[in-house]
Amino acid sequence: MSTDVAGPRTAFILSIGDELVAGEILDTNAMAIAAELARRGVRTLGHGTLPDDRGRIAGALVDAAAVADLVVATGGLGPTADDLTRFALGDVVAPGADLVEDEASASRLRRWFKARASRTVATNLVQALRPSGARMLANEHGTADGLLVRHGGATIVCLPGPPREMRPMLEGTLDALVPAGGGLPSGAVLACGLPESEAADRLGDLMDRGRDPVVGTTAADGVVAARVRAIDADEAAVRRDLDAVERAWAPYAFGRDGATPATAAGAALRRAGETVVTAESCTGGLLGGALTEVSGSSAWYLGGVTSYSNGLKRALLGVPDEVLERHGAVSAETAAAMARGALARLGGDWALSVTGIAGPDGGTPEKPVGEVWIGIAFGGDGGPRARVRRFRFRGDREVIRRRTVQTALVMLRLAAVRIGGPATVEPDPPLTWEAAGPAAEAPS
Amino acid sequence: MSTDVAGPRTAFILSIGDELVAGEILDTNAMAIAAELARRGVRTLGHGTLPDDRGRIAGALVDAAAVADLVVATGGLGPTADDLTRFALGDVVAPGADLVEDEASASRLRRWFKARASRTVATNLVQALRPSGARMLANEHGTADGLLVRHGGATIVCLPGPPREMRPMLEGTLDALVPAGGGLPSGAVLACGLPESEAADRLGDLMDRGRDPVVGTTAADGVVAARVRAIDADEAAVRRDLDAVERAWAPYAFGRDGATPATAAGAALRRAGETVVTAESCTGGLLGGALTEVSGSSAWYLGGVTSYSNGLKRALLGVPDEVLERHGAVSAETAAAMARGALARLGGDWALSVTGIAGPDGGTPEKPVGEVWIGIAFGGDGGPRARVRRFRFRGDREVIRRRTVQTALVMLRLAAVRIGGPATVEPDPPLTWEAAGPAAEAPS
Repeated sequence: MSTDVAGPRTAFILSIGDELVAGEILDTNAMAIAAELARRGVRTLGHGTLPDDRGRIAGALVDAAAVADLVVATGGLGPTADDLTRFALGDVVAPGADLVEDEASASRLRRWFKARASRTVATNLVQALRPSGARMLANEHGTADGLLVRHGGATIVCLPGPPREMRPMLEGTLDALVPAGGGLPSGAVLACGLPESEAADRLGDLMDRGRDPVVGTTAADGVVAARVRAIDADEAAVRRDLDAVERAWAPYAFGRDGATPATAAGAALRRAGETVVTAESCTGGLLGGALTEVSGSSAWYLGGVTSYSNGLKRALLGVPDEVLERHGAVSAETAAAMARGALARLGGDWALSVTGIAGPDGGTPEKPVGEVWIGIAFGGDGGPRARVRRFRFRGDREVIRRRTVQTALVMLRLAAVRIGGPATVEPDPPLTWEAAGPAAEAPS
Repeated sequence: MSTDVAGPRTAFILSIGDELVAGEILDTNAMAIAAELARRGVRTLGHGTLPDDRGRIAGALVDAAAVADLVVATGGLGPTADDLTRFALGDVVAPGADLVEDEASASRLRRWFKARASRTVATNLVQALRPSGARMLANEHGTADGLLVRHGGATIVCLPGPPREMRPMLEGTLDALVPAGGGLPSGAVLACGLPESEAADRLGDLMDRGRDPVVGTTAADGVVAARVRAIDADEAAVRRDLDAVERAWAPYAFGRDGATPATAAGAALRRAGETVVTAESCTGGLLGGALTEVSGSSAWYLGGVTSYSNGLKRALLGVPDEVLERHGAVSAETAAAMARGALARLGGDWALSVTGIAGPDGGTPEKPVGEVWIGIAFGGDGGPRARVRRFRFRGDREVIRRRTVQTALVMLRLAAVRIGGPATVEPDPPLTWEAAGPAAEAPS
């Protein structure tokens, strides 16, 4: 199949590694690559996963190059004996010939190890070898360079397996291969705090099959996305649909492609010129960790306290003994006292608090695993006020903690845009996983 | 390839769906199936991902059945127009014949919809159709039954795509196909703090190709794994190799399959009967978040402080103004003061502190992005002592923060097992990413 001047139209993706085939690690690369190709208007025909077997890799490269304009392979480029992709590629594009050492790559490797005051272990220099005719793709984040070579009418690109190394190399390579703007107009609106079924219902006719642009929803990790894709429609039509989705999803819609609940909360605080502090228990610091994912977060996040033990809830946040004894660490009263304590001792305009049972142990019939209180306090003119909400998250420890963080971020964003914060009289919009019973001004 | 009486020895996995091929959703089924097969001693030869295309599905089923004893396909069994797996399977095993309605399956579907007070939408009854000669696999958690059929020497199993419907059906089907206890012996040793190339060099002959058991290394997110797999060797041989890897990787080896740097640090603290507290800056709470990933961590983690602003470094940890002014927030002195302050104010036997520049902004020529100090303090008999180490992590903000957390966990584990902690005279083992210059007792 030939590649026209407009760049590749179709692709096949190969994931290489014994550990992938055996189910020891999860392959996220194939999905990331297919999604990136789709954004650029390149259609993926299929994926294959195969072991560290030189003959199998060579065979798969040949088969894929016969059906697709572009073959993207990941894995098997490292320095160890089971990294065989470069040799298999050589078997395909320069059979019988030895690999050649790429000078630029070899000297980059020497610099890399020197900068780390590490001996250039000879083993590593295998990573500078390439089939004759192939060129290296520089790796800014690791030692294994990628490889690119034309074969028949197809382009074969071999990328390192670690996603952090693969991603920038993929993007750089595609920038050169697929002319910008080759993708059809598309965009996404993201929302958090409502279930996917309700999100879809709210879109009504927008989701009709056969419509142009096409609107489809997906949900992952509590974030619902509506992707709007033009078939023959123009960019203005896509923009119009994106705006319509955003209105339909108010107040849960928090941004477009690339936004996260944390960046959205940060942007709202920045616009309001306000700051936040945190007081965490079952999340152990993950809420602060999520807020500080956002670069520049020091402008609106001051810091926090993780009071995992009751002793530290008293010592660091001033939660009264009697509150802990009478209501327990997982209660409306403790969540409110944590939020007020954080505001008083750490400062800031808002304080978020979290206390709950992430499991797998510690649940009771009254307070089962997944029961979490989230508090938010505000130091307004009339003195500090706190509001608390109760959630029942499903899932294992990791999922419960992740959903807790996400829900706290949604509460913070809504508060900072003056919807449902303690400083406003707006009603609280209901949130996914919220336990029955209305949110209430916290008891003091 | 034929299946002997002991059941299938090899398998091929197919994931079916346009949305998988296009990278719109992540395929977790292929990994789950391969892992389940490995536990039962069935070796997976490869995976393929293909679109909702009747011809492509049929072709892939034929190809897979030609090389493997068992073919496991997921997806494409639902009621909508793009669910084509059952028709493709018919094309393969009973070409030219119509599908037949399975009576048990049809009446189960009618009961299912009745119980949900829903009309049995006619569309749904397509899910009771099967190729002649195939049998249905009952779905306890949804409407799409699975299909099982013999073809040539192989067994083809088609399962629904949603993981919670797929999993129980897979397990039930394999219980019948693969006698229990058939798994080949294998295991893994995990290490952190040394580069993969050095880890491989330390293994020497163990990694020779053609050896039995086979030993292979992989590296992901800073953790190096050596997986030991028997071909014909017995369990004792695998255990012997695992022990040899562990010795070769001392003191960096932290555990076997399933361990993480956090669980290993926690286990070391638990054995020592000690507790830890944290003081974080650039990681924003992620170190506490990682420690509390471990269930039961409240036994050895008391809590922490995230002092993102200098004001909170003073207020919560007592870092003196003059230290911050003279040496800056990212310095040996501040890291040491944070660790000592956390120990004094939060309690515990150990305190970990982290201060650095995660970027993308804030770097200078002297203190570039990626410069991180990690401190560890111990309240021994002779009064509190702190030791600090300097690292230069590469990567973006996310990577720098993750590597910081991981390195702090390694330092904690080594300290708790009395290697390289401030309470010992053992030399500090070098760690990946450590900046030139010896670790030193911190200036006070």
